[in-house]
Amino acid sequence: MPIIHTIADCRSFVANEHNEGHTIGLVPTMGALHEGHLSLMRRARAECDAVVASVFVNPTQFGPSEDFARYPRDLERDAQLAAGTGVDAVFAPSAAEMYPAGFATFVEQSAPVAERLEGQCRPGHFRGVLTVCLKLFNIVGPDRAYFGRKDYQQALVITRMVRDLDLPLEIIRCDTVREPDGLALSSRNQYLDEATRRQALSISRGLGRARGAAAAGERRAAALAEIIRAELLAAGPCSIDYVDIADPDTLAPVETLDGPAVALVAVRIGGTRLIDNCLLEP
Amino acid sequence: MPIIHTIADCRSFVANEHNEGHTIGLVPTMGALHEGHLSLMRRARAECDAVVASVFVNPTQFGPSEDFARYPRDLERDAQLAAGTGVDAVFAPSAAEMYPAGFATFVEQSAPVAERLEGQCRPGHFRGVLTVCLKLFNIVGPDRAYFGRKDYQQALVITRMVRDLDLPLEIIRCDTVREPDGLALSSRNQYLDEATRRQALSISRGLGRARGAAAAGERRAAALAEIIRAELLAAGPCSIDYVDIADPDTLAPVETLDGPAVALVAVRIGGTRLIDNCLLEP
Repeated sequence: MPIIHTIADCRSFVANEHNEGHTIGLVPTMGALHEGHLSLMRRARAECDAVVASVFVNPTQFGPSEDFARYPRDLERDAQLAAGTGVDAVFAPSAAEMYPAGFATFVEQSAPVAERLEGQCRPGHFRGVLTVCLKLFNIVGPDRAYFGRKDYQQALVITRMVRDLDLPLEIIRCDTVREPDGLALSSRNQYLDEATRRQALSISRGLGRARGAAAAGERRAAALAEIIRAELLAAGPCSIDYVDIADPDTLAPVETLDGPAVALVAVRIGGTRLIDNCLLEP
Repeated sequence: MPIIHTIADCRSFVANEHNEGHTIGLVPTMGALHEGHLSLMRRARAECDAVVASVFVNPTQFGPSEDFARYPRDLERDAQLAAGTGVDAVFAPSAAEMYPAGFATFVEQSAPVAERLEGQCRPGHFRGVLTVCLKLFNIVGPDRAYFGRKDYQQALVITRMVRDLDLPLEIIRCDTVREPDGLALSSRNQYLDEATRRQALSISRGLGRARGAAAAGERRAAALAEIIRAELLAAGPCSIDYVDIADPDTLAPVETLDGPAVALVAVRIGGTRLIDNCLLEP
């Protein structure tokens, strides 16, 4: 399986596929691949004639005090894992080619879906995510692009961009993959030691309890959020960025559950920022 | 020649062309077609297998106090003129479909090329221009898109977007078409009466005198700008938005002509805002 390093080579790879009438699936990643990414690649493999996985740690989506420099990078390992799922090519461009001197064009989104939660905690984050996704879409020209629901808001924001800008592709959102004990897979789990990893289980446990409470009739969003918050705080010292109950499509805040809602959490445990979410169905 | 009113119909029109291996040329316009637009369509006709001209008065590129409401609209006449150049289809979408409720995604550009001159005089203008052009590119999927040099900065900003966002198309910039007496063709010339039209000739006259002075050895940008400014003011009451001598690629201000530069003018004459430009070659 080839590792493609330049935009020109990627364009000729996909041009060949297009010329043969093949559909193309794209799985954009920042590398440090785990079973979550691989499940996206397997789904793309099943649904598309050709599959490209991109591996690019995108500098424009990290804030100045975030973990861009120490974000885990191991292209050889990533390429092996991707090849194991049947991906046809890994596209791993350089930052210098993706953002040449004088780069000045960005995609911005102003809706609550982009401005709340991650948008508020990480200014400029979605601007970077949307811009790099648009660039990858333009380079690869996929019929479908695959994103995980673990980054729930990211998948919504990208879906909204595709609709607003009339991009000729479909965004496929796939379920979060979890460890057997409930921890949502994340490349940032590598930062956790034994104690903070145990503490991080409070996230999925809290979400699960809120889900149970909603199913059992609790309609008050504040009460559901409090269940999650209490679980996080009981597990040890942490810094909660948000615990939010929101509309699953617009991410507008919800006060009373009249239908499905999504519970979203961002919390720092031992210096590692983790996010997770789950659907609440009354 | 069909007039296509919906995005879905436009997509199927161009899908047929793509399936037959045809190259597609796009000429984006706001209608009120004149010989300038028609020259772009003829060039596209000569260079592409299929040509789509879009006619869409784009609300997002007008400021609140600008002429969106009174901008001239006559789709039947525009379609006849376009058909006369051999265009294969006119795409005239509705604002409701281009900007549905909840539309929230825009392209922003931060370089001097977008922030100076029109960017400064018309805040949000290029945001609207870039966003609608990106949407049209995504709907039509052209191999080439044609823009006139009369809107010099607009063509540069769009070229920059295409490069930064890796759009798979080429921007073709075409020379300004002028009346025999020098007035640059513009849909807004319709707003001029006999007296203001005569006064507006000071723009091309001033640009021509600056061009002559540069060719004759004048290297000081301030002196060249003053030649244009004096010509505008001598012709009657007007309000000058800018007279600028700039780098032809970056639009950074130039003090001394070491190579080609562009002279750009925006001036209000009798309530009508007109722009024009010319290359200065020392």
